[in-house]
Amino acid sequence: MSKSLHRIGILTGGGDCPGLNAVIRAVTKTALTRDGMEVFGIEDGFLGLVQNRMRQLHNDDVSNILTLGGTILGTNNKCDPRKYVIQRNGHTETADVTDRCLEHIAHHQLDALIVIGGDGTMSVASNFVRHGINCLGVPKTIDNDLEGTDVTFGFATACMIASEALDRIHTTAASHHRVMIVEIMGRNAGWLALYSGLASGADIILIPEIPYDIEKICEKVRTRSRHGKRFSIVAVSEGARALDGKQVVDRVDPSSPDPIRLGGIGRVLAQQIEEKTQIETRTTVLGHVQRGGTPVADDRILATQFGHAAIKALLDGKENRMIVMKGGVVTDIDILTVADKQRLVTLDHPLVAAARDLGTSFGD
Amino acid sequence: MSKSLHRIGILTGGGDCPGLNAVIRAVTKTALTRDGMEVFGIEDGFLGLVQNRMRQLHNDDVSNILTLGGTILGTNNKCDPRKYVIQRNGHTETADVTDRCLEHIAHHQLDALIVIGGDGTMSVASNFVRHGINCLGVPKTIDNDLEGTDVTFGFATACMIASEALDRIHTTAASHHRVMIVEIMGRNAGWLALYSGLASGADIILIPEIPYDIEKICEKVRTRSRHGKRFSIVAVSEGARALDGKQVVDRVDPSSPDPIRLGGIGRVLAQQIEEKTQIETRTTVLGHVQRGGTPVADDRILATQFGHAAIKALLDGKENRMIVMKGGVVTDIDILTVADKQRLVTLDHPLVAAARDLGTSFGD
Amino acid sequence: MSKSLHRIGILTGGGDCPGLNAVIRAVTKTALTRDGMEVFGIEDGFLGLVQNRMRQLHNDDVSNILTLGGTILGTNNKCDPRKYVIQRNGHTETADVTDRCLEHIAHHQLDALIVIGGDGTMSVASNFVRHGINCLGVPKTIDNDLEGTDVTFGFATACMIASEALDRIHTTAASHHRVMIVEIMGRNAGWLALYSGLASGADIILIPEIPYDIEKICEKVRTRSRHGKRFSIVAVSEGARALDGKQVVDRVDPSSPDPIRLGGIGRVLAQQIEEKTQIETRTTVLGHVQRGGTPVADDRILATQFGHAAIKALLDGKENRMIVMKGGVVTDIDILTVADKQRLVTLDHPLVAAARDLGTSFGD
Amino acid sequence: MSKSLHRIGILTGGGDCPGLNAVIRAVTKTALTRDGMEVFGIEDGFLGLVQNRMRQLHNDDVSNILTLGGTILGTNNKCDPRKYVIQRNGHTETADVTDRCLEHIAHHQLDALIVIGGDGTMSVASNFVRHGINCLGVPKTIDNDLEGTDVTFGFATACMIASEALDRIHTTAASHHRVMIVEIMGRNAGWLALYSGLASGADIILIPEIPYDIEKICEKVRTRSRHGKRFSIVAVSEGARALDGKQVVDRVDPSSPDPIRLGGIGRVLAQQIEEKTQIETRTTVLGHVQRGGTPVADDRILATQFGHAAIKALLDGKENRMIVMKGGVVTDIDILTVADKQRLVTLDHPLVAAARDLGTSFGD
Repeated sequence: MSKSLHRIGILTGGGDCPGLNAVIRAVTKTALTRDGMEVFGIEDGFLGLVQNRMRQLHNDDVSNILTLGGTILGTNNKCDPRKYVIQRNGHTETADVTDRCLEHIAHHQLDALIVIGGDGTMSVASNFVRHGINCLGVPKTIDNDLEGTDVTFGFATACMIASEALDRIHTTAASHHRVMIVEIMGRNAGWLALYSGLASGADIILIPEIPYDIEKICEKVRTRSRHGKRFSIVAVSEGARALDGKQVVDRVDPSSPDPIRLGGIGRVLAQQIEEKTQIETRTTVLGHVQRGGTPVADDRILATQFGHAAIKALLDGKENRMIVMKGGVVTDIDILTVADKQRLVTLDHPLVAAARDLGTSFGD
Repeated sequence: MSKSLHRIGILTGGGDCPGLNAVIRAVTKTALTRDGMEVFGIEDGFLGLVQNRMRQLHNDDVSNILTLGGTILGTNNKCDPRKYVIQRNGHTETADVTDRCLEHIAHHQLDALIVIGGDGTMSVASNFVRHGINCLGVPKTIDNDLEGTDVTFGFATACMIASEALDRIHTTAASHHRVMIVEIMGRNAGWLALYSGLASGADIILIPEIPYDIEKICEKVRTRSRHGKRFSIVAVSEGARALDGKQVVDRVDPSSPDPIRLGGIGRVLAQQIEEKTQIETRTTVLGHVQRGGTPVADDRILATQFGHAAIKALLDGKENRMIVMKGGVVTDIDILTVADKQRLVTLDHPLVAAARDLGTSFGD
Repeated sequence: MSKSLHRIGILTGGGDCPGLNAVIRAVTKTALTRDGMEVFGIEDGFLGLVQNRMRQLHNDDVSNILTLGGTILGTNNKCDPRKYVIQRNGHTETADVTDRCLEHIAHHQLDALIVIGGDGTMSVASNFVRHGINCLGVPKTIDNDLEGTDVTFGFATACMIASEALDRIHTTAASHHRVMIVEIMGRNAGWLALYSGLASGADIILIPEIPYDIEKICEKVRTRSRHGKRFSIVAVSEGARALDGKQVVDRVDPSSPDPIRLGGIGRVLAQQIEEKTQIETRTTVLGHVQRGGTPVADDRILATQFGHAAIKALLDGKENRMIVMKGGVVTDIDILTVADKQRLVTLDHPLVAAARDLGTSFGD
Repeated sequence: MSKSLHRIGILTGGGDCPGLNAVIRAVTKTALTRDGMEVFGIEDGFLGLVQNRMRQLHNDDVSNILTLGGTILGTNNKCDPRKYVIQRNGHTETADVTDRCLEHIAHHQLDALIVIGGDGTMSVASNFVRHGINCLGVPKTIDNDLEGTDVTFGFATACMIASEALDRIHTTAASHHRVMIVEIMGRNAGWLALYSGLASGADIILIPEIPYDIEKICEKVRTRSRHGKRFSIVAVSEGARALDGKQVVDRVDPSSPDPIRLGGIGRVLAQQIEEKTQIETRTTVLGHVQRGGTPVADDRILATQFGHAAIKALLDGKENRMIVMKGGVVTDIDILTVADKQRLVTLDHPLVAAARDLGTSFGD
């Protein structure tokens, strides 16, 4: 063990994702087999670092959490200590509370931080790297769009959930001779719609990376109808966009403090397809069920590997790395290179090519 | 066997529902073990009767469909032969084509019709009863709100799906300290929200039968927060209504041929709760996934019992009955008594009482 | 609240069963909403009563356990305080330690015991009833064979698991043109094999209540083969027996301290069917997976109802009752009437009749 | 399209495996989008080739089979045309009927055979390669132990099933304070036990590649007990072996035509562990449920990729290749190099190392 590696902090940032607890468990179990090593869990992402809320994790704390969805540490997808929101004299302002975090890190004698999160979380972590804190990143996103790694945990579970929903919708579409649209997570990257659409035999897959032509979509629906298939299944990423480049912007209710989603791409498509083809069309928006609950076996294994690798990397004296999976091998890359970069579906991706050859339309 | 019972027609009407194929299979298998009995499948509900689309069902046709979602016959939730929509000279009109249906029934020498559907379908069937056709009803609705029967097939599957979704949402709510709302099917009856909410330990259950007070809901959320539970799960029927009696009407986009759902009760509640409690609130609308796909074991058994009982009732010489489950026993009632009646959750239902005693709020 | 009802003990006895934690949760949550009421959890069934191991249960202890399989209290399916096994001077003897249990009950001032278990557990409880302890029974068995109640929690989950296994086995049987046998729990009662067999369309269902003739089984297999169905699925209760009255006794390895199962009815049948029909035959023994893990929605609801009803019965001043479900209504019966009685499948049970009419063979 | 590639035969050999139908669908759909290309399905593996049983596959034949377990073509895991079993004059002999197969291939003008199977099937295929038939292999085994490819379809589904079983068993073990052993498929390779054991947090994983010392296993059980964990979960491959090199040979009942499994490694271990630790120990043998039923999303995608790649390889003029996945890329290798070779778990495999670092014992 590196002499200076005595006590490690761990936090989870960003949205919920199946496998977070499996990482926390692997980190803690691996660390606690080493003499003198301790793990401190920081609550609610970086917010807990600002507010000095952390607690020591023992083996009992991570027992029985491998199959548990969510994160026992809590998470937060808004807090950035550089722009911490403070209520002062009745109005809201932001302040840089990085120093306060550094004090809490020093006070607890944390020798390194394991930061589990997506590109936003890694961007916040990079701030601490620049202040001399050794941050070890563990990539997390159900969208599978983080640059530098082939795959992220949570994706397999989300894919299973979306695929099961498409399977269920399929029987209804066939019985009613309807077009059924399933709106799947993915603002900028279409991985989830591509994988689940292919897994469930969607007739049309629409992803942000391949702008669609509504006429091509309707032509596919009509061609199927002419061949006696009076239904079609559409798997669409929430971020899919038409050829004219416009994305469906969620309507904002002015009376609401935050923009609230009134209906996205799925609803718009349903209206257009029904109008143009005269075939009844319905939409289902999967929403949050895609990112919660018990992880599938694959995600538990991947999350365990990542958590284990994070401790191993620290023990090997590595600094400021992010754990990744490349070509089937768990390795690590510079954490500073990944912030705010996204891995998108390429137009010639083998799964896109295979889907096309099987007759799937991408609306282009 | 009753002398006149030689050939039976079967159709499925209304929306998709897990277990339809299990009924078709049980009817066909039971009938075909009788010498000389034949089953004709009518396609797409009453539409196939109007258009004379039916085909003989053999054992092979119903092999391997027990676990299959949807209906191999197709369904239709709009066609009423009394108000059949016809395009004539460029405009749309309706006509009563009951006589045409009666001719098709006579032509195929159908001695009875087995009609699988909800209250709308039974209402259409009653028209044929009045024209002397022996109609045997099999109740179908995932909402479980059909008068005369304690339970309908499809409900258990819908309940499982809603409950699994609530379970997944639960981990996200807990990790983010959010209020999470899950909008569940049920326009007029709250059975599905009540059962799945109770099964998954929802903190607040809102159903059409118990008008809610938004202040009471927020008070429950705040009380939980004060006791350290910084999240709450709300299971809400799509037809839940506020104390002032107003239901959330889906917004209608005037450019759309049909009213299209822009956001229902879930969205409205999220806005109100977030505003009043300052706790982040999110909504998921389960939609069509609740009514498609492979039925759970319970629904397969119930559907099998119902299909079997339909043939037995016909063989016993019964006419114009609907198969029901009462007090754990499969029996039958007059089909004419059930049309357009709904079974609602009573305010003193044992499950409501139990949920209240466990601390669940109904918002009242 | 009854004046004397201040503190309640709760224990779980017998084998694992999905829904135990849901009962514990419902009991505790319902009790704790009453002023001054307390719940004490007794560990490992009656063993904890003998050894004075119990702990107070608070709301936090039962939070998040609704979906959790097993029992947070632990269980024990051997301990009977009337025949408590003691190691003394190197040899084993039994003693009646009922008095010791009564002291522990008195010491903790328990006003009543809620006892969750099967007929064995109720039999032990009846001993305490006779010593003046108010015992409230909650029936538990995945076999669904407890006299006095129409249904027990755990059965629906076991049924789902057995049915899913039969579904999976079905594809293999069909692809290989094999007879596939699935051995399902049920030593004396065939409920589980009957329900799951019917739910999954088993061709042959063998249960203890209907002795089978191996020739009839083989005739069914051959008839299917002649009709082009070159495979058959057999759902068999572990306690199924041949017409000659002999049950397959598990072989006992003399070197083992306890009898260990070397192969039961499934193995014997496979050998006989393969030999007689020359069709390849394979057996799967489901075993313990049928009684563990997350309960399905139905079981969570039933377990919640039972737990809730237990507290309600105590508050109503009832003594020595067992909570049951009769005709769709939760009620209670004298706990002393149920010990060691079993509810078996009757030969004219509606599901047996329906299965027969659909062409299922019971081997008779 | 290669001039000579007009008509393709396809067969499935060996045991059932989730994803077979997805391959058949992908092959057929990809082929039928090419002008003039036809696909012939050969029934029951090589047996159909011997008996000249094949049928043309159209798009309708492969519609709706993506989620279906098993193989619509049927399979056979015994037939090798070089050693075809013939009944002649009352006794059994074997003959080389390769010529007969070649005639059938010529008669149907098959330009290539797509052969889906494991090492046994590839070995049979290699015989046809030597006779000038272009054979394109698609690797299939739930054991994931085929040389040349990183992963095979069916493995992810088997892993999910084994992992779910371990999860269910876990609650029973914990409630009863028992050692629970789950016997998992894998005669020579331990991939399935390793993956599912890691996914479900098994305390002890025993695989054929790492001979175990029963004392080490018991020491692990005792250590856990001393630390308050009164239960342990053992995931054991059916082919696991003790340090002395002996494997548990299934007992053969001399009255049976074939050796029948009376109890394997799981039973033996249970006896030994219970005797040595005095902790109650139970075994569950998962058996055939691991290889049947609906494939998970991952397997559907992989099978689809493999089927698609098979047609692409043929269209590229390739001959006698086997489709494989290497480093995340679908490619192909010489089909003759793979017969009868197995890919085993290496002692320094990253998952073995990770499991050890998390505290899992491999019994060594």
